[in-house]
Amino acid sequence: MDRRGRAVALISGGLDSCVAATIAAQAHHLCALHADYGQRTEARERRAFEAIAERLGAEHVRVVDLRFLAQIGGSSLLAGGPEVPRGGGGAAGAAAAAGPEPGGPRAIPSTYVPFRNGLLLSLAVAWAEALGAAAIYLGAMEQDSSGYPDCRLSFLRAFEKAANQGTRPETRVRIVAPLVRLTKGEVVRRGAELGAPLELTWSCYAREDVACGTCDSCQIRRRGFAEAGVPDPAAAPVEGRRGA
Amino acid sequence: MDRRGRAVALISGGLDSCVAATIAAQAHHLCALHADYGQRTEARERRAFEAIAERLGAEHVRVVDLRFLAQIGGSSLLAGGPEVPRGGGGAAGAAAAAGPEPGGPRAIPSTYVPFRNGLLLSLAVAWAEALGAAAIYLGAMEQDSSGYPDCRLSFLRAFEKAANQGTRPETRVRIVAPLVRLTKGEVVRRGAELGAPLELTWSCYAREDVACGTCDSCQIRRRGFAEAGVPDPAAAPVEGRRGA
Repeated sequence: MDRRGRAVALISGGLDSCVAATIAAQAHHLCALHADYGQRTEARERRAFEAIAERLGAEHVRVVDLRFLAQIGGSSLLAGGPEVPRGGGGAAGAAAAAGPEPGGPRAIPSTYVPFRNGLLLSLAVAWAEALGAAAIYLGAMEQDSSGYPDCRLSFLRAFEKAANQGTRPETRVRIVAPLVRLTKGEVVRRGAELGAPLELTWSCYAREDVACGTCDSCQIRRRGFAEAGVPDPAAAPVEGRRGA
Repeated sequence: MDRRGRAVALISGGLDSCVAATIAAQAHHLCALHADYGQRTEARERRAFEAIAERLGAEHVRVVDLRFLAQIGGSSLLAGGPEVPRGGGGAAGAAAAAGPEPGGPRAIPSTYVPFRNGLLLSLAVAWAEALGAAAIYLGAMEQDSSGYPDCRLSFLRAFEKAANQGTRPETRVRIVAPLVRLTKGEVVRRGAELGAPLELTWSCYAREDVACGTCDSCQIRRRGFAEAGVPDPAAAPVEGRRGA
């Protein structure tokens, strides 16, 4: 396959960014970027990131310390914030309340970290400029799983403009969000078709040993695999261990 | 004076951000933000920041660790980068080469840190959203002292749009760059008129004890005070000490 230049991929360790990074790696030399912003399950997410970056043959791998975000606070994802919602209090609940209609008004869940994607993208732009990478991939999804304002395509387009205004004249950076219009089920199906290493991903917001199965993120993941009609390769051994 | 809400001011410890923060403090409750991004003279700049924030009566004061920028590299301002240019190799030389004509093409100096203002503004937006601040002040100047792409008004306007797309619907953030069209001399004059604490600022990129007087930043500062016809209140005691 013809690999056209470098691309920076933001990889959290979860499903969506794994699929987006797989798409990036099929067209570019992959530069894998992960941020530790003080989330509760960072140690586990970082292991997932490292495994995914290795599997995808990343040319450059970088973990950046953004733990100062925890000083800003205001999110249940961060140590010191309110508790992670379970069973409908957060993104899953909000999405359920808003119904399947895309684009409808939606409550912003307590796991929202102020302007997180703005920070992550700024970082990716800085790294891309230093590396001469022409594209930044991220797993943002507008319709499903979030309701976060910084996952909307309108934000990503506006940010791309700002990035190109604020870098050297010879720098041209595209921000690529290949999943932005997909549902979680479609992302799972796409990942399975592409051979993305979904078995290496971690979604649980609450635990680091065995996925809790009840936090919003676990519920969204389960719904996604169910919708796609694909078994979750990360869930299977857990079920086995529980049964043993 | 009527103080309308909170404003976040990015304060490096140098002249320009001191004047911008003084303007912010006259209209808002000041939230003072400083980033340690691994610049050579950070310890001295941070002392300047703290003194300025205190003098301006800041309501909130925060120093954020962005030293991961040094991992990205590519700037002479950062530890591990190439040496800081002296006597015309960097911003001062580029500005002199471009002449007084605003908007002309200009070399980007080696002190450029990739997308620094993008990162700083992302951080400021996140903090502003958490604090409910409606404005972000910074000392960016388009004409003089830089040539950095992320100091241009077109970038700041584009970033403001992105910030408002990427935050909660109720968040409205204005990015205010009150010096963007001024020359260094006009900034000095404005600061002197407003009673900005210019004596607390630090500009030297090369030393932390006594300003070297020869680095680009020292030269630009000297030209600014000369153009304004104002004595530099920070330089005076140094001259005295030298003469003693």
